[in-house]
Amino acid sequence: MTEQPQPTFPPPGAAPVLRVGVLGSGTVGTQVVRLLLEQADDFAARSGARMEITGIAVRNLDAPRDPAVPRELLTDDATAVATGNDLVVELIGGIEPARTLILAAFKAGASVITGNKALIAAHGPELYDAAAAAGTDFYYEAAVAGAVPVVYALRESMAGDRVTSVLGIVNGTTNYILDEMSTKGLSFDEVLATAQALGYAEADPTADVDGLDAAAKAAIIASLAFHTRVGLSDVQVEGIRSVTADDIREAHASGCELKLLAIAQRREDEHAHGVSVRVHPALVPADHPLASVHGAYNAVLVEAESAGRLMFYGQGAGGAPTASAVLSDVVAAAAHRVNGGQAPRESSYARLPILGPEAAVTRYQIQLRVEDAAGSLAAMAGVFADNEVSINSVRQSAYVTSDGAAVVTFVTHPAPVFHLDAAVEGLRASDRVMEVVSVRRVEGQ
Amino acid sequence: MTEQPQPTFPPPGAAPVLRVGVLGSGTVGTQVVRLLLEQADDFAARSGARMEITGIAVRNLDAPRDPAVPRELLTDDATAVATGNDLVVELIGGIEPARTLILAAFKAGASVITGNKALIAAHGPELYDAAAAAGTDFYYEAAVAGAVPVVYALRESMAGDRVTSVLGIVNGTTNYILDEMSTKGLSFDEVLATAQALGYAEADPTADVDGLDAAAKAAIIASLAFHTRVGLSDVQVEGIRSVTADDIREAHASGCELKLLAIAQRREDEHAHGVSVRVHPALVPADHPLASVHGAYNAVLVEAESAGRLMFYGQGAGGAPTASAVLSDVVAAAAHRVNGGQAPRESSYARLPILGPEAAVTRYQIQLRVEDAAGSLAAMAGVFADNEVSINSVRQSAYVTSDGAAVVTFVTHPAPVFHLDAAVEGLRASDRVMEVVSVRRVEGQ
Repeated sequence: MTEQPQPTFPPPGAAPVLRVGVLGSGTVGTQVVRLLLEQADDFAARSGARMEITGIAVRNLDAPRDPAVPRELLTDDATAVATGNDLVVELIGGIEPARTLILAAFKAGASVITGNKALIAAHGPELYDAAAAAGTDFYYEAAVAGAVPVVYALRESMAGDRVTSVLGIVNGTTNYILDEMSTKGLSFDEVLATAQALGYAEADPTADVDGLDAAAKAAIIASLAFHTRVGLSDVQVEGIRSVTADDIREAHASGCELKLLAIAQRREDEHAHGVSVRVHPALVPADHPLASVHGAYNAVLVEAESAGRLMFYGQGAGGAPTASAVLSDVVAAAAHRVNGGQAPRESSYARLPILGPEAAVTRYQIQLRVEDAAGSLAAMAGVFADNEVSINSVRQSAYVTSDGAAVVTFVTHPAPVFHLDAAVEGLRASDRVMEVVSVRRVEGQ
Repeated sequence: MTEQPQPTFPPPGAAPVLRVGVLGSGTVGTQVVRLLLEQADDFAARSGARMEITGIAVRNLDAPRDPAVPRELLTDDATAVATGNDLVVELIGGIEPARTLILAAFKAGASVITGNKALIAAHGPELYDAAAAAGTDFYYEAAVAGAVPVVYALRESMAGDRVTSVLGIVNGTTNYILDEMSTKGLSFDEVLATAQALGYAEADPTADVDGLDAAAKAAIIASLAFHTRVGLSDVQVEGIRSVTADDIREAHASGCELKLLAIAQRREDEHAHGVSVRVHPALVPADHPLASVHGAYNAVLVEAESAGRLMFYGQGAGGAPTASAVLSDVVAAAAHRVNGGQAPRESSYARLPILGPEAAVTRYQIQLRVEDAAGSLAAMAGVFADNEVSINSVRQSAYVTSDGAAVVTFVTHPAPVFHLDAAVEGLRASDRVMEVVSVRRVEGQ
């Protein structure tokens, strides 16, 4: 057996000391501070430096705090914390004052660790440039999917491969709401009210339910996956406010779950060259790995030319899981300050065009009321073929409605939205079709 | 929309050139060479250096090769390739001459990338020391779970957290064999013969079916997860040769799948302090994420104090998926040569004792034939309680056998093997128990 003497932590005095400033002391900040203090020896052994927290900037010095946060470290001078440390951990969130503080931190020569997805999606290139000018690190693992190391995976583990698409459940609040609607048959408003009462949804739920939080993450994911700049305004966004209990029942009837997905696709074919980035509810086949991602869990599915399909799964939010992501970044940034080296800089050399909604490649589920007569199916199949859309499955309801109609449900193969929409228009114009009952996106093959 | 000018690749001459040597040109080596040549601009943009393959060492210069491998780069002078390059990619496998060549490469100042799990499990510390002495990088993402970035995850993404256990399906051949046995009801020998004919299993299948390949990966996983040295000889190994079609039928009857698992656990409680590392077949509840990992896919489930449960899933073998892992390491090592910095060194400061088999924490499924009389169940429950084992479920067959026995199946809660085995002995000694029919491990809660 391998010999195991006593553990060897760097003794105090033997390792360099890095000054750490924390901006914000909410649920994540509290866990970051607690763990840095409780596991100081481990952090020293792993990074090569002892971390000394010199200040924790908060808005209100007198607010009640978790006892894990030493009161003597609290200060309301955020600028001093941002500019007086080697490592600055920004956990305030939002655009300002976070942006100004981070820029000040870089200017003062600090390495910066943040979980601020909104800020990165809005001002990523500016922050990257500031880090490069300072010659320090910019880390943000916690900005996407909490504890799940998606940023590491895309920025480092996939650096030797070509990512073709990323499909993710990256917002726990909406995933929880859709889950509750799905299992309890409740309406969106009912579930939202309960989620707010339980603290699972914010009092102002806009960022979550309207898809903006997921869109910020989608922009970050797409930038990293495709080595190109993608900002929040490049993402097509549709939230879950309009999802009804009926929609979910129909999803189940089709053997699917309804999920809010963040999607980043690269197209490189005769019809399009660029990236499509979007957030919207979609049907996901029940046997697809993303269909069984429940509650606050996040999952990100990466398809790459050589690796094929990879999936990363874990807790997408919460104080401790997010702190885990922040602290891995702290260790990496600390090790660079001790040993040299740097975090990967922004990689945007590919400079891919952003494609419009019509170039997205997806599948449609189309439900129609059609004349129950010979030749109807052939006529409809012809409409699909004319628009270069292949049919994956077709299902006709066993009953015929009182007006002599049959309900037919088509699921297509993947095709550009441009072609799919043309096929829907063609169906709408067909005299065999009495009504286009619903058109829904299906993702995940 | 974000402005997107033309892509910006470093023009030839503007980026430093790194000399790359490849040892071995099998399925993985061929893909590595093909991709480095085909996507040279991407690699230059991502790493900051242009890669020039100067030699590909093979045993037989005249063997037929994939046309992607330029014949003029082939050489049978492996030592020259190992010692004449900035980056050396070792894809020969096995202990020698791989070990000697890698040590020579480090001595010549090269950074080394390998996928050689057997070598790392046997000689990891020696290789790490050689890299440290040379001041260069040692990367081996491809050694565990193919394209799935498990090494990155454990070595970097979890550096700010405390891993408590890792549970993985890390050998595609055995997973494929168990899958085929499960779905087709075939015997181990029948499936193995077919797998060999199809090229899914080696002519000498020992490394796979006896669990040695999984054990090497388990040793690497445990070393990284727990910051301690774990060698191949520290791993308790049981392969799948003795698994029968009956075992699998009974697993299904219990609502489980039978999987070969690699398990690394850290114990830190009143009874034990150290790590338990093992590979063995185990029942996995059908609704557990590992139960639905099929065929050549690998999955690794990490539990950590802050992050909670994380899962990583993807293709565990094959030329292109493994090349994806190798090439991400190539990019990282190249970037360090250009920009400074280094891969994480061996982190073995925790120096944890290796625990014996009796200290492993697991669950047992115990099937008994018992006297069908009042009080039998209470008597058996007493035996479990006396040995500090809690019962998760108990199921009694609907029928009574001709000798007046009932078949009862217990599944326990997790407990140390020491206690579980004592409970089994207690049951065997009980006059209520006519026979202990089977004892199986259950993993995954």
